[in-house]
Amino acid sequence: MPYWEIFTPENAFTPEDKEQLSEAITSIYTDTVNLPKFYVVVLFKDMPANTMYVGGKPANNFVRIRVDHIARQLEGAEIRAFCMAIIEEKLAPFVKERGYDWEVHLDETPMDLWRTQGLIPPSAESDMEKLWAKENRPVPYEVAAT
Amino acid sequence: MPYWEIFTPENAFTPEDKEQLSEAITSIYTDTVNLPKFYVVVLFKDMPANTMYVGGKPANNFVRIRVDHIARQLEGAEIRAFCMAIIEEKLAPFVKERGYDWEVHLDETPMDLWRTQGLIPPSAESDMEKLWAKENRPVPYEVAAT
Amino acid sequence: MPYWEIFTPENAFTPEDKEQLSEAITSIYTDTVNLPKFYVVVLFKDMPANTMYVGGKPANNFVRIRVDHIARQLEGAEIRAFCMAIIEEKLAPFVKERGYDWEVHLDETPMDLWRTQGLIPPSAESDMEKLWAKENRPVPYEVAAT
Repeated sequence: MPYWEIFTPENAFTPEDKEQLSEAITSIYTDTVNLPKFYVVVLFKDMPANTMYVGGKPANNFVRIRVDHIARQLEGAEIRAFCMAIIEEKLAPFVKERGYDWEVHLDETPMDLWRTQGLIPPSAESDMEKLWAKENRPVPYEVAAT
Repeated sequence: MPYWEIFTPENAFTPEDKEQLSEAITSIYTDTVNLPKFYVVVLFKDMPANTMYVGGKPANNFVRIRVDHIARQLEGAEIRAFCMAIIEEKLAPFVKERGYDWEVHLDETPMDLWRTQGLIPPSAESDMEKLWAKENRPVPYEVAAT
Repeated sequence: MPYWEIFTPENAFTPEDKEQLSEAITSIYTDTVNLPKFYVVVLFKDMPANTMYVGGKPANNFVRIRVDHIARQLEGAEIRAFCMAIIEEKLAPFVKERGYDWEVHLDETPMDLWRTQGLIPPSAESDMEKLWAKENRPVPYEVAAT
């Protein structure tokens, strides 16, 4: 559900970097709200020189990140600031500490307009969500009629 | 207006597959709410190995779909569930039945912040929208002063 | 903050075109609401033949633009229409006047879920935002406790 798109200069990250960064991003969600690991999707996109522009100038040392949150809405100013802080902390070793410029923004999209493996994801903190987290896969289940 | 981004492993789909899948996606909107065909935009993006990660691991058999709905808001839980069900049905022959893992989520964005061919799209179910649908092109028209 | 993604046929734009178009897009925000230039990010994405489909058919002469507005919400129908009109005006020399088909839509995303260079962007029209605009960079500052 957290859906991350990470745009980087070409070859900024090795496959090992990408695996480690996507693990770090996954931990944001598993450590705080116990999301199933497999909810966390990260897409990396190499951007050749002269395809990213900032303020009208080519930005060839720039990492731009766009995120959709689906499974959880961030409730309250404190939680929202905390989430952004932990995101920055996880990104830092791969971005700030390597000398890249960077920017990140999140959107929140409707949970009911989301399916994984054709299934309606179970409601937040339900027993079924816990099972999905434990097994790290979308376990088919009966959706209660409403 | 429905704006689809489909991320797939490299060469997952032939041009024929893409045309058929985009036709199937188009039919979701033309068969239910009579949208003009040309409103339906589908972008396919080949993702090389080690550019998609799920739960911190490379996901090289994964199809990820992100959709923006613009021209219509889905009103009511039943309609929303129906829309997701028909989407899954149309995707299945290209995704599930070919053995890919997959996930899809939709957002809804403001109709008034949308232009096609520089024109303000006519309001839902107006005569002008019906003309656009019939001619399958954005027919220029006078926008009523408000 | 305005975050633009521009999908074009391969090689539709030269690096000079992209710089000029991103400058034109930047001017939309600097001339109207005095945003810092560096807030304006434009990503260009070459789309090979048979990767963009409109109404179920390949669209190989098509420019598709998706925008997220973050730093400002557009308040009121008049402002919203004005913003779309100025966007069309800036795009025209690169798109309409070159014979491309095109479509653009915007979303508005939450300002508090946005960081640039790890910093909380200052509030709209604050003195700090004016300093960021003047220096065209994210000047570190103390965030007031709330």
